[in-house]
Amino acid sequence: MFASADRKRVDDALRELSESGLDGIPGSLLEPIRYALAGEGKRLRPILAQLVHEACGGADDIIPLAISVEIIHTYSLVHDDLPCMDDDDVRRGRPTLHRKFSQREAVLAGAALIPIAARAVFRAGKKLGYDEGKCRAICRALLRGAGAEGMIGGQLRDLSAEGATLSLEAMESLHSAKTGDLILASARIGAISADASPEALTAVERYAKSLGLAFQIMDDVLDATGSTTTIGKTAGRDAALGKSTYVSILGVDRARQRAESLVKEGTDALLERGLLTSKLLEVANFILARNS
Amino acid sequence: MFASADRKRVDDALRELSESGLDGIPGSLLEPIRYALAGEGKRLRPILAQLVHEACGGADDIIPLAISVEIIHTYSLVHDDLPCMDDDDVRRGRPTLHRKFSQREAVLAGAALIPIAARAVFRAGKKLGYDEGKCRAICRALLRGAGAEGMIGGQLRDLSAEGATLSLEAMESLHSAKTGDLILASARIGAISADASPEALTAVERYAKSLGLAFQIMDDVLDATGSTTTIGKTAGRDAALGKSTYVSILGVDRARQRAESLVKEGTDALLERGLLTSKLLEVANFILARNS
Repeated sequence: MFASADRKRVDDALRELSESGLDGIPGSLLEPIRYALAGEGKRLRPILAQLVHEACGGADDIIPLAISVEIIHTYSLVHDDLPCMDDDDVRRGRPTLHRKFSQREAVLAGAALIPIAARAVFRAGKKLGYDEGKCRAICRALLRGAGAEGMIGGQLRDLSAEGATLSLEAMESLHSAKTGDLILASARIGAISADASPEALTAVERYAKSLGLAFQIMDDVLDATGSTTTIGKTAGRDAALGKSTYVSILGVDRARQRAESLVKEGTDALLERGLLTSKLLEVANFILARNS
Repeated sequence: MFASADRKRVDDALRELSESGLDGIPGSLLEPIRYALAGEGKRLRPILAQLVHEACGGADDIIPLAISVEIIHTYSLVHDDLPCMDDDDVRRGRPTLHRKFSQREAVLAGAALIPIAARAVFRAGKKLGYDEGKCRAICRALLRGAGAEGMIGGQLRDLSAEGATLSLEAMESLHSAKTGDLILASARIGAISADASPEALTAVERYAKSLGLAFQIMDDVLDATGSTTTIGKTAGRDAALGKSTYVSILGVDRARQRAESLVKEGTDALLERGLLTSKLLEVANFILARNS
């Protein structure tokens, strides 16, 4: 999971952008950017956008547009791994960007991915025949998730929380921003591109918020129980950094139960509106069952 | 120079955004973002956008929109000053952001300014009654200047050139990207917002490209001849880092002559199209005469 065919569509769209959509970038910067974009990943975010699009009645292949969220996600990983942040050496089974190149390349290539993502929206939106207003609404959803009030703010709060004991509420709020807002952006992009009704959009947002939190909880569970080889990044770092995690607060079993109950809330929100598809149910199950 | 009234309009617009346009950003990130936005500056870029707008027949106050370029410029300074980049302690007469806060805040707040800038375009464009297509064209000009093929690529090439001897051509190409592309973006934004003709846009671009290079040359001259107090950042760093500069290649006098001849080329391009206003001539003269 996900179906390798879905992941491959995302990989192909990223490769196409990497090879043909980065004109004019000097080689010294192009190399680290391509390295970042070539990393393997679950591709949860663009696949989720596509599946939400279909659940809302859309019939487009929005993967070339939805990779914008994966690009923002990739940028956040590059910066997150920096020595002044999480200081990590391994990501997605490869050396982190600043270990492969240098910190300079990591700071610059990371930031460069933000305008690349925004432009991917307009580039793909145009090909899909979306009007300017729709492209802009999609871009706004993307930047809102990526921005200081979303992911970036969550990153800083997460780093600042090292060594501190957080309440469950404080941690949920932090992770809603850090991980959740970009997953929420994916779902919004899927719904907006399908011209979803306001009611459908609300249901989709509830689903995405619940799944985003569940995803983070399972990340903590994996960090506490997985191995570096399996999860593709250094395992056990959270404990080493003295971070509050769902596992440190709830223990592994109750953390997993909390994730399950969140996933149920999310799928129920879609069910109520008749929007739950077999594939969106699979995504929900994947979040609980994943081992990497 | 510039007229303090013009600078004040930019400062006011940045303050308005800083105070009312950053909803939902957690305090720990808001503080460094506001610190970055509150730094003093020449405000060359937004003022240039406004003056080009007027020269092209526009009658709007586009400062609230044009501060997007100043925000991108500010982000680039924050990252440029990092220890893994230029490693600078003083900027615009104040401690650099990573010295005042930490490297984490500098990396995150810097990157956060990119979506803030893009959203400033849409926020201000909407208030000005610009349609989606126009907002998008402005946003594209902004991101093109800010991106990997422009400013960010130039930054990396600049850093990589430390200790290397560059030819004049290689250095001009580097600086066209690093400094020039954002000045070019300012001019484009002024012209697009005024619905300028393609011919007018071309003339404006020639003016901006020439001025951008002249600006960089004068930066090198100031670095070689100014004091830290006057220029608001550490003087003499280029020589200390063994960087090729216009001064190291041409000497102070010939570098200044090259700047003068570029400024003349730029103003001539506007004259040919009847677009040279008294204020755009002032900008050109300011670039040659500035001491900070």
